Amino acid sequence: MDDPRLTPVSFLGVGEMGAALIRAATAAGFPVTAWNRDRSKADVLSGVSVAGSPADAIAAAPTVVVCLFDIASVHEVLDPVVHGLAGHRLINLTTTSPDGARELAAWAAAAGAEYLDGGIMATPPMIGTPNSSVLYSGSRHLFDDSRELLETWGAAEYFGHDAGMASMYDLALLSGMYVMFAGFFHGAAMVGAAGVPAKEFATRAVAWLQAVLPALTEYAEVIDGGDYSLPGQQSLYFSDLTDILDASRQQGISTEVVDVVQRLIHRQIDAGHGRDGFARVIESIKHSEAAA
Amino acid sequence: MDDPRLTPVSFLGVGEMGAALIRAATAAGFPVTAWNRDRSKADVLSGVSVAGSPADAIAAAPTVVVCLFDIASVHEVLDPVVHGLAGHRLINLTTTSPDGARELAAWAAAAGAEYLDGGIMATPPMIGTPNSSVLYSGSRHLFDDSRELLETWGAAEYFGHDAGMASMYDLALLSGMYVMFAGFFHGAAMVGAAGVPAKEFATRAVAWLQAVLPALTEYAEVIDGGDYSLPGQQSLYFSDLTDILDASRQQGISTEVVDVVQRLIHRQIDAGHGRDGFARVIESIKHSEAAA
Repeated sequence: MDDPRLTPVSFLGVGEMGAALIRAATAAGFPVTAWNRDRSKADVLSGVSVAGSPADAIAAAPTVVVCLFDIASVHEVLDPVVHGLAGHRLINLTTTSPDGARELAAWAAAAGAEYLDGGIMATPPMIGTPNSSVLYSGSRHLFDDSRELLETWGAAEYFGHDAGMASMYDLALLSGMYVMFAGFFHGAAMVGAAGVPAKEFATRAVAWLQAVLPALTEYAEVIDGGDYSLPGQQSLYFSDLTDILDASRQQGISTEVVDVVQRLIHRQIDAGHGRDGFARVIESIKHSEAAA
Repeated sequence: MDDPRLTPVSFLGVGEMGAALIRAATAAGFPVTAWNRDRSKADVLSGVSVAGSPADAIAAAPTVVVCLFDIASVHEVLDPVVHGLAGHRLINLTTTSPDGARELAAWAAAAGAEYLDGGIMATPPMIGTPNSSVLYSGSRHLFDDSRELLETWGAAEYFGHDAGMASMYDLALLSGMYVMFAGFFHGAAMVGAAGVPAKEFATRAVAWLQAVLPALTEYAEVIDGGDYSLPGQQSLYFSDLTDILDASRQQGISTEVVDVVQRLIHRQIDAGHGRDGFARVIESIKHSEAAA
């Protein structure tokens, strides 16, 4: 199965995501060695050499992919074997903060290793499908030289030398996702209190949110242009959420999720911008409350 | 142009949305009469008879479609001519609260008119396209008998006799939309502080949110099933948003939008449900804070 033209790769961490990354790499013919604290999870992978220790895994390949629980577990696993990393390529796919990624990049540089940080925009089952993409930042050389491996996981995009940038972008996209989920839960709770099954609401919510997604691109154009008074926009006055809040209260549910959006809208109205378009809401977020 | 087989329809209100509704109805061959406070907006519509007063418009057709600014403007326009409504069919597409729709339904019944309340899930340019749908509740007879007209505007769906239900559903879907928009603004503000144009972020955010939308259906299944401990879900522990919050603070932006989601997550963790799946967040919304 292994393609002799391809560089061997070692993986540290065989959780759900690690296993998905390994499957995609082996399917593409990469010779793979894997280590996991609980060895049984590595043993069940087919076509993979299982290493008995992180040191053995590092020694087995010039490229080391790390996919552990968090930055603390990365240090826990790699600190004791840091001398073995010299001359290696380290691709960190563990979710870390931007500052965490920058710290790891400096730590790797001190150890004589190249460092690339990745933010995975996919769930494990999505890895290797056209819906998967991974954002990278850090060593451009490592990124360019490893594209064949990186592309086994999904679209590979490079965001610059600052190792923290991929994580920042990743977290920004995740924030959009978690907040969207919360908005769905709010709507489901509203109609749920009237006896509508969540599944029925979800069918319509998915279609509706899909239909309005293109608005994000229109808002972005207004934001980048900087003129919130361009004609053709829905005004902030018209975006008042009192009806939604009243109806939510009547259903006996918490209004917190919508309250925060109403607050962002009204901060702009109170500042005299009620006739401006909805995209101006971003101005309520751009500066921390204390500074606003 | 008018199809003699089709029942004449009168429209009260020719705003952006009213004009779109009228264009779709006339295109389908309905004989249309329109009234607007500012008559010039009605005069520019082609193939439409312009009425000089609400009373004239009502007298011109058995079906009256109302699309005004809010419920106050509906009463302002219709209260003086309430006697002319007896025996008419009233289709109210003005955005109202669920209780507002119920009040209008009772008011119409007292006037001897049939009443159907609609919530439009479309922007004016979407009216009549496959992406448009309108949710209705109130008189089933009026709904069934007017389908040919209703379907000129988009998919027509009936939500029961309670005239407030279409509005409730409409507001629930809108809450999902506004909250999703706020989440996008948060992400755009995060990367914007690092110099990324909103347009660049929007391209990726649209693709990412589209990719994760199917999760709503999975969450809905868990919610309806009532067992948040089903395997295969992302746990609440794993959904902690500290990384997003820290990175947002480092970018100097307001964390309000994400704070509220973190609070909903941690209310469930604090209640001992950290190992349960993310869908349990809805339990933090189902009951008002005071009651929780």
